[in-house]
Amino acid sequence: MTPLPPGSTIGILGGGQLGRMLSQAASRLGFNVVILDPEENSPAGRVSQGQIVAAYDDSTALMVLGRTCQAVTFEFENVPAASVERLLQGGAAVSPGPRALAVAQDRVEEKTFLNGVGAPTVAFASVDSLDDLLAGLERLGAPALLKTRREGYDGKGQVWVRSAKMAADAWHAIGEQPAILEAKADFVRELSVIAARGRDGRIAVYPLGENIHKGGVLKTTVAPATVDAKTEKRARAIAKAILEGLDYIGVLGVELFDLGEGRLLVNEIAPRVHNTGHWTQDGCVCDQFEQHIRAIAGWPLGPVTAHARVQMTNLLGTDIDQWAKLAAKPDHRLHLYGKAEARPGRKMAHVNRITPL
Amino acid sequence: MTPLPPGSTIGILGGGQLGRMLSQAASRLGFNVVILDPEENSPAGRVSQGQIVAAYDDSTALMVLGRTCQAVTFEFENVPAASVERLLQGGAAVSPGPRALAVAQDRVEEKTFLNGVGAPTVAFASVDSLDDLLAGLERLGAPALLKTRREGYDGKGQVWVRSAKMAADAWHAIGEQPAILEAKADFVRELSVIAARGRDGRIAVYPLGENIHKGGVLKTTVAPATVDAKTEKRARAIAKAILEGLDYIGVLGVELFDLGEGRLLVNEIAPRVHNTGHWTQDGCVCDQFEQHIRAIAGWPLGPVTAHARVQMTNLLGTDIDQWAKLAAKPDHRLHLYGKAEARPGRKMAHVNRITPL
Repeated sequence: MTPLPPGSTIGILGGGQLGRMLSQAASRLGFNVVILDPEENSPAGRVSQGQIVAAYDDSTALMVLGRTCQAVTFEFENVPAASVERLLQGGAAVSPGPRALAVAQDRVEEKTFLNGVGAPTVAFASVDSLDDLLAGLERLGAPALLKTRREGYDGKGQVWVRSAKMAADAWHAIGEQPAILEAKADFVRELSVIAARGRDGRIAVYPLGENIHKGGVLKTTVAPATVDAKTEKRARAIAKAILEGLDYIGVLGVELFDLGEGRLLVNEIAPRVHNTGHWTQDGCVCDQFEQHIRAIAGWPLGPVTAHARVQMTNLLGTDIDQWAKLAAKPDHRLHLYGKAEARPGRKMAHVNRITPL
Repeated sequence: MTPLPPGSTIGILGGGQLGRMLSQAASRLGFNVVILDPEENSPAGRVSQGQIVAAYDDSTALMVLGRTCQAVTFEFENVPAASVERLLQGGAAVSPGPRALAVAQDRVEEKTFLNGVGAPTVAFASVDSLDDLLAGLERLGAPALLKTRREGYDGKGQVWVRSAKMAADAWHAIGEQPAILEAKADFVRELSVIAARGRDGRIAVYPLGENIHKGGVLKTTVAPATVDAKTEKRARAIAKAILEGLDYIGVLGVELFDLGEGRLLVNEIAPRVHNTGHWTQDGCVCDQFEQHIRAIAGWPLGPVTAHARVQMTNLLGTDIDQWAKLAAKPDHRLHLYGKAEARPGRKMAHVNRITPL
């Protein structure tokens, strides 16, 4: 594909903070941006040329988006597969493609794919019934984590099963729907790697981040993480195997369990820009948002070297009330999402604390 | 003034690239932005929540803007004074205020003000007739630069008068309108300083930039410029005197002639973010655009320390055709303005080349 020239229009499914920051990066490269989101006046829509206010499966809206935009992408992985098919049928260039979405939308398919490309995960069992769950527990041992196969994020739709006695309750708790049972990972810490693959097949991998979650939600990322060369190399190899295995175009987030001594397991992948990559906005010349736009527009990938150490902290819910205090700190850079209502746990902003490398 | 909380709306008069980059900075701080510009779908309007398409002196448009926005600013100094008055009468907070505009809109008033606060300029004469011009030439010596008192930028509306014989032609060339005659400055190089003053009266001054103009238009800025301590100190003192003399709120650009040995003359001031400050986007944690928004919103000013050396180059007209080549350079960061038509000399984009300090 010839690089998409500035002045072209990029469509983004999803108008939240990721879409907003993607839109801002696209504008900086001279693109126009149109958002598709059912919520009027979305955070991304407010900084874009236009927003189509419609459901993600609205066929007219998808047709308009496809005809308006020379490239289409998304900010979340639960875009209906049928919507992507419809865009593709209409001739739109959608990246990352349906294969990446299919894998990312189903936890059993995801782990099966990962193991297939040599990216190890915890042992797991596919669960379609209480019997499956009991058999899985028997094989994997307790405690094990029961998650719905589809949907769910930030710790939603999942429950720890600590014994066979709890199995029925757990099965009920997740709504008795197709699920996955995952063995407990005995990890030292959580890492993540943000990587990109361009239309020319070239790959660029950012330095690793070390993440701390609270209540299933990311709280902070520190990057570049302090890791030994073996771990760094292993993470890069895993990212490369995933990107190539999916024939992926764009930025991908890979959450990792660090077991120590260079041993890594993949927790999950996100076929999009990722919260653990927000540090790149203030640590790299080309951040993950610009990188994603470059990739889907067929531009050469940008540099991924860190020029600073960054501690990214999410501001959730009323954390945002600290904005004035944070704005006064000279080594902090604020990124607010323009959301009106600070509901508990809602991602409202993040702040990057910048220190020299 | 209590700092304006995120979620407030900021109005910007002018929808060009400066308005666009101001809007992007404001969005990052969680503000909504409305642009007033007569050109539909302006570069700034396309990345903002809304644009009012109307003339800058349209009283209805100004009323709507004033009522919608908790703070109003502008991207260019030739906003009609009557428009600012109208906004102020409607109760809008407009910064920088009418005093800064009045001074910046009239070259005689500007130099008179500057000399009054101890910021030296070239010698000058106010010219309202050919006789004034001849008398001025006699006093200042030839060559001298004849400029219209009002309007004109990037070398427009000005002509060198190399001898008394040329006076009549020069007077005709600028349209026989109120003018200023400026003595030739015998300068070594052109510098500029970008400075900000907050609502609390605090001042922040960025490191100096060294500028190269071609055909009256800025081509490159290198910053931080290599300057001795005396020059740096003098430039800071000048910036401070101007900001305080105007009771200024926001970012101000000051163009300087460096005469050597710490001697500086002010060439002109711009009561707004300035092309020679674009390097701050990739050289500082808080760039001039965020700084201006912080100031007018009553937030504390951000840090002005450089963490990298930047060479900013303007891409004028068809220079923009180099975008693909520039996008491939790992130490270059592109900033495109989203302008459709690459008219000769039109500012289309800039690129910051980043090197370690």
